[in-house]
Amino acid sequence: MADLPDKKTAFIDWYLAVVEGANLSDKRYGIKGMNVWTPYGFRARRNLDTVLIREIEATGSEAIEFPALIPATELAKEKEHIKGFDGQVFWVTKGGLSTLDIPLALRPTSETSMYPVFALWVRSHRDLPLNVYQVVNVWRYETKTTRPFIRIREIHFFEEHTCQANEEHATARVRSNLGAFRKMAEAFALPYLATRRPDWDKFPGAHYSIALDTPIGGPQTLQIGTVHHYRENFSRPYGIQYEAADGSQQFVHQTTFGLSERLLGAIIAVHGDSKGAVFPSAIAPHQVVVIPILGTDAGDAPARVAAEVAERLRHHGFRVHLDDGEERPGAKYYRWELRGVPLRLEVGRREAESRSVSVADRLGRKSKVALDQLERGVAERLLEFDRELTERARAAFVASYSLARTLAELAGSTTVRIVGWCGSEECGHRIETAVDGALLGTPEEELPIPVPAEVTCIACGRAEGARWAVAGQPL
Amino acid sequence: MADLPDKKTAFIDWYLAVVEGANLSDKRYGIKGMNVWTPYGFRARRNLDTVLIREIEATGSEAIEFPALIPATELAKEKEHIKGFDGQVFWVTKGGLSTLDIPLALRPTSETSMYPVFALWVRSHRDLPLNVYQVVNVWRYETKTTRPFIRIREIHFFEEHTCQANEEHATARVRSNLGAFRKMAEAFALPYLATRRPDWDKFPGAHYSIALDTPIGGPQTLQIGTVHHYRENFSRPYGIQYEAADGSQQFVHQTTFGLSERLLGAIIAVHGDSKGAVFPSAIAPHQVVVIPILGTDAGDAPARVAAEVAERLRHHGFRVHLDDGEERPGAKYYRWELRGVPLRLEVGRREAESRSVSVADRLGRKSKVALDQLERGVAERLLEFDRELTERARAAFVASYSLARTLAELAGSTTVRIVGWCGSEECGHRIETAVDGALLGTPEEELPIPVPAEVTCIACGRAEGARWAVAGQPL
Repeated sequence: MADLPDKKTAFIDWYLAVVEGANLSDKRYGIKGMNVWTPYGFRARRNLDTVLIREIEATGSEAIEFPALIPATELAKEKEHIKGFDGQVFWVTKGGLSTLDIPLALRPTSETSMYPVFALWVRSHRDLPLNVYQVVNVWRYETKTTRPFIRIREIHFFEEHTCQANEEHATARVRSNLGAFRKMAEAFALPYLATRRPDWDKFPGAHYSIALDTPIGGPQTLQIGTVHHYRENFSRPYGIQYEAADGSQQFVHQTTFGLSERLLGAIIAVHGDSKGAVFPSAIAPHQVVVIPILGTDAGDAPARVAAEVAERLRHHGFRVHLDDGEERPGAKYYRWELRGVPLRLEVGRREAESRSVSVADRLGRKSKVALDQLERGVAERLLEFDRELTERARAAFVASYSLARTLAELAGSTTVRIVGWCGSEECGHRIETAVDGALLGTPEEELPIPVPAEVTCIACGRAEGARWAVAGQPL
Repeated sequence: MADLPDKKTAFIDWYLAVVEGANLSDKRYGIKGMNVWTPYGFRARRNLDTVLIREIEATGSEAIEFPALIPATELAKEKEHIKGFDGQVFWVTKGGLSTLDIPLALRPTSETSMYPVFALWVRSHRDLPLNVYQVVNVWRYETKTTRPFIRIREIHFFEEHTCQANEEHATARVRSNLGAFRKMAEAFALPYLATRRPDWDKFPGAHYSIALDTPIGGPQTLQIGTVHHYRENFSRPYGIQYEAADGSQQFVHQTTFGLSERLLGAIIAVHGDSKGAVFPSAIAPHQVVVIPILGTDAGDAPARVAAEVAERLRHHGFRVHLDDGEERPGAKYYRWELRGVPLRLEVGRREAESRSVSVADRLGRKSKVALDQLERGVAERLLEFDRELTERARAAFVASYSLARTLAELAGSTTVRIVGWCGSEECGHRIETAVDGALLGTPEEELPIPVPAEVTCIACGRAEGARWAVAGQPL
């Protein structure tokens, strides 16, 4: 039970220790960056997927699944796209003992597998919009250092692909996706900022890309999702056309919305503390752990009551774990704090006698709940826990941004920075050099901190065309 | 709206026409045997998975997920296993622009990915049993003709892998899996027979294999699941050992339980008829379709009542589709029969006036339900539909077997055959030749038809060691 590394000064060491200590992922598989989803980690992932699926289906999207392998010939059809992914693809070149005629790519993303088929599905304006999504794994031959959930080679992925009648409808779908993400992020208690990426950092083949970033300490940010507007960039090479009401043939405008298991990494990174992971109740593998305290004079009442409490809560629909093993209570507290369980319920002699449970939430707040109020009491405390978690995360989020007025100030930034930017690529790159990171783009919504009405470019000093933009160090 | 091919005389043509007509799978993807899960097909698959997951978790198994890629060196460790899969593996040989040092297999099954890690997870008798499962895709370089759901190259797969303390515990796990499958099959209304496969047909590396077969017409059968006992065949090469209570080191005994999307193929094949697919209510993408009948004198009451009915049923938890499009009712009836929806609810002028709905189930039975009894009435009719579907399937199942007493009788069999078999490989192969198919093995449960107490080998005539066995033509 060694202490965890310090989150502030040794973030990555802390993160790796939490993932391992909470037993969320096992990286002892024989291939770099390909990890095993443990039972506990898989439960968190399943809960995450449940939220994504609920919110995207509420916007009328339907689940589908395309094959994992993509013929090299299809992958190459959109030029920017293949340039962006060329170095990252795993190639299948043999089937059984034969060499394949056409190499097959393990999908790094699914534009090029889906769009030839979309061209068959979309024939008339009555087939639009086509809003479909899949939750699948994708593979990327990552050459940088890999990290569980955050940068890996087999990625659990969510991708919505849509076809719209025209540019305005596609823009509306982008807005709808951003609205769906707001609800997902609420369930994760994750604050974030949506920015439009600079042109040189957009998705390969996109007209523009909006990315969702969350700060994870100092100037560092984690990109936790993206929404792209493709205009006709893919529909032209893949021939996705429809007959409009007036009889003319039109190319569809497309959008995509991408999320991944990195959200789980962000949840750990943002909410975790010196004791380990902290899961919001929507994601927690166990929402409640029940621990009987078996003192020498306690008899078997605590064990009986603890089992009854666990059973009642389970029956009510909570995800509950009864930890009635032989370890001492301290060891159990330590483990379930490390593993991020929102509520710990303790039942000792006194609780058994008074028909109550002691409740400690993962943020350190303690209370009692009478057994005759058990289900309501636990539901209320979970709600309060989520509310407090959201508030703390929001306060840390706001404190993660600060304004910079000169390039010199950007050196050694201890927060993500808000800067004026004229929009030119030259000034953008000067800002990136000064912050030793990236220009994350211009905000798509209100900034987390107040900014002056007047804005000039931090690099060239021009007011003309200048807007506030965000600069930081993406992990 | 052409008629479907005849199921009895042109089974495969009928099957392919149903899968395409019901829009369950799109095979116009650019790689042989790799198909697209359409929205409707994906819903059926999701419902199927829900049943598998519910029943396996009820037996204490936990979900995990291992990487899709397996180093060639790990795949080769168990000799029979690699021999069995050598010709069927897709190989990844390149990452980005580099050739990989060790080729990576796309998993054809996951023994060789999981077991090196199981060797790390299992240390003590307290870690046993280890019962884990994953629902993932596997890939097999199939060289035979491919068929949607039945024989394909990217397979949606369910695999449980367990480690047990000794052979008896492993045998008990095999029994537990067979019990879980019985419950799954009840939800699918699928009759089947469990047989122990002859040694020459067991899973590569298994001690023995029990397979679950369902007849699909004439002598043809479809293998819809397998349960394997591995003894120590894998734990020795992969070093999965534990310290027993007495301090000694022991190898675990292992079992696996495999199912796949082929179950969906079996559901279509067994229940489907001259009008198309017939889905049991647990699997049906839509359990109920509601169709307003808009006659010239009907006004807007039918549309209003139909919408109200759909909304009430949806709210109650049924999967409901309201088909309020402009087509004539006949075209809608045809489509939803083809697509296998259990209940069709019609609302015309008379129904709207009498506050009722007309119900037609997919087996052709008609009734009325008053709106004030709607939810209960629909629930009852779904139950009755499932019951009738199960009974019809059971009757067809029993009629699919017949006894044969001579090898000559096996030629041109019009059913699956029950034969006496002495257990020798030589006689087994003579039976296989005579039936132009396979000896499916010896039953693990009561045979569907009565058999005499006395049994002699159909090939050599010996009574010694002879048992009843099943012979047919696996698809």
